[in-house]
Amino acid sequence: MPKAPVLIDLKFPDREKVVSAMSGFFRNRTVIDLAEPENAKRDLSDCRYAVLWKPEADLFQRAPNLDVLFSGGAGVDKVLALEGLPDVPLVRFVDPTLTRRMSEYVVLQCLAHLRRAGLYARQQRDRIWREWPQPEAADVTIGVMGLGALGLDAAEKLKVMGFKVIGWSRSQKTIDGMETFDQDGLDVFLAKTDILVGLLPLTGQTTGLFNLSLFSKLKADGPLGGPVFINAGRGGSQVELDIVAALKDRVLAAVSLDVFETEPLSAESLLWDCENAILTPHIAADTDVEALFAHVEYQIERFEAGEALQHTVDRQSGY
Amino acid sequence: MPKAPVLIDLKFPDREKVVSAMSGFFRNRTVIDLAEPENAKRDLSDCRYAVLWKPEADLFQRAPNLDVLFSGGAGVDKVLALEGLPDVPLVRFVDPTLTRRMSEYVVLQCLAHLRRAGLYARQQRDRIWREWPQPEAADVTIGVMGLGALGLDAAEKLKVMGFKVIGWSRSQKTIDGMETFDQDGLDVFLAKTDILVGLLPLTGQTTGLFNLSLFSKLKADGPLGGPVFINAGRGGSQVELDIVAALKDRVLAAVSLDVFETEPLSAESLLWDCENAILTPHIAADTDVEALFAHVEYQIERFEAGEALQHTVDRQSGY
Repeated sequence: MPKAPVLIDLKFPDREKVVSAMSGFFRNRTVIDLAEPENAKRDLSDCRYAVLWKPEADLFQRAPNLDVLFSGGAGVDKVLALEGLPDVPLVRFVDPTLTRRMSEYVVLQCLAHLRRAGLYARQQRDRIWREWPQPEAADVTIGVMGLGALGLDAAEKLKVMGFKVIGWSRSQKTIDGMETFDQDGLDVFLAKTDILVGLLPLTGQTTGLFNLSLFSKLKADGPLGGPVFINAGRGGSQVELDIVAALKDRVLAAVSLDVFETEPLSAESLLWDCENAILTPHIAADTDVEALFAHVEYQIERFEAGEALQHTVDRQSGY
Repeated sequence: MPKAPVLIDLKFPDREKVVSAMSGFFRNRTVIDLAEPENAKRDLSDCRYAVLWKPEADLFQRAPNLDVLFSGGAGVDKVLALEGLPDVPLVRFVDPTLTRRMSEYVVLQCLAHLRRAGLYARQQRDRIWREWPQPEAADVTIGVMGLGALGLDAAEKLKVMGFKVIGWSRSQKTIDGMETFDQDGLDVFLAKTDILVGLLPLTGQTTGLFNLSLFSKLKADGPLGGPVFINAGRGGSQVELDIVAALKDRVLAAVSLDVFETEPLSAESLLWDCENAILTPHIAADTDVEALFAHVEYQIERFEAGEALQHTVDRQSGY
């Protein structure tokens, strides 16, 4: 009996990498790549598995017989919000390359704010040679919200760079060498935090969480001239008008945002013009496509052998 | 007998910090701070120790009885070049805070180039949302030139971030977990290097070392679209006209320079206009003034107790 086909709908920026990676996986299995024009109208009713990143809205109408869904990235909120989502397991992508890339982004942003990269870039533009007083990483406390694989790896690397790091998660976690806080300790956590790093999934609880009220609870008298907010989790967790206001009123000294309420970020957004904002187009943790396919292939093997899938999403908690 | 006076001539950007730090050290010893107007014409012949960063040219004429000189930073080339330099021990500043700050700078610059920070900043200016393919740190080899305290700490932290790291020093050093090269292996070292990090002292051997000929030996087909050069050592080691040419001809894809042939960098320099250059005003490893004074006080105690001074400079090698 032939192996059941796998459907690929991955809207990644590097199309070439997807194509080249595909050739090395799913041997003896039909692969239906929706980015190929020839598949635009293909009957998808034989597909049992789907690997998805920003899939088409009518996907589940066209492929009504899926057994397992795989997210192409760490976040699953977009897939969960799709119309007609079947009641089948949804598997997240958890992978060392994804984690490492996220930590690259987080450490880069924390160091950029610590070392006044924006200020020096503006001076460079104006050909100004001027040194500024410079706190070191050990003078700065970074509060990481979200203590899954991504948050823990980032925290570890930030500590190696010399930062003080504290952590927050919805339910209390005990982590060696790091002070942690839970729901009840949120205000205490915020009051200690100079740089807030958001690595939270988008759920009912986290929607709109990063708002003016929360920002105003951050440590205001730290060594960076005000608190810094970095979001590499999900844009739906932040209130962008509040961020613009907080930057204007110096409730926040600076932000780095890789995610936005609506993506792509509208050209009309007021965020573009904020001087102390570093904006990137959702590139913090680019998925390594080969690692993704290796993970999907392994999980399909487990599934077909009757073993339990790993990294499945709890629909109740949303992650 | 009163303790011999110590002379302070530290032209650091944060004058306030120097003054506040001074109050906590050198108890029961006269401190002569040359930045105070009242000391402009003071007789300095009783001074036995001097702590120097960018001292005045006539210092040694005014203070002819110095027993020990202390550099206010890691580099000593400027002090060594002073006219009338007496033949007394010169002590370098080696300190964990200095080392940690240098590593902050090096890791920040390496991550900025890895993660295309300049490209995304330009896109942000133009309100462009566009993702680019993204190699990860493990795809990139960083070659660190200079394997003293600074180079080793930076290498260790770059490895934690996931980069491949190799090292070069004039004489062969064996370092656990890092491939190293010496004088004879320079070309092999360069051919493996995607990002070259210069952390060398300025000596006869290193003057003008970073020139077009050297840049053209770097790995040209790496994942960053061309080699990157980062210099946080000494400006005299680089040929700035060659850097401008190398950027123009894509021999180099990008540079980060914290040091320059002449500082402050002239407003006329062609470097200011190079698109892929990150220029900072010699702020990579800001000296922690309290740590400096603690170090100086400790060395003076050793000296006055008849013990050997530590971290003295070898005039022959220049470091």
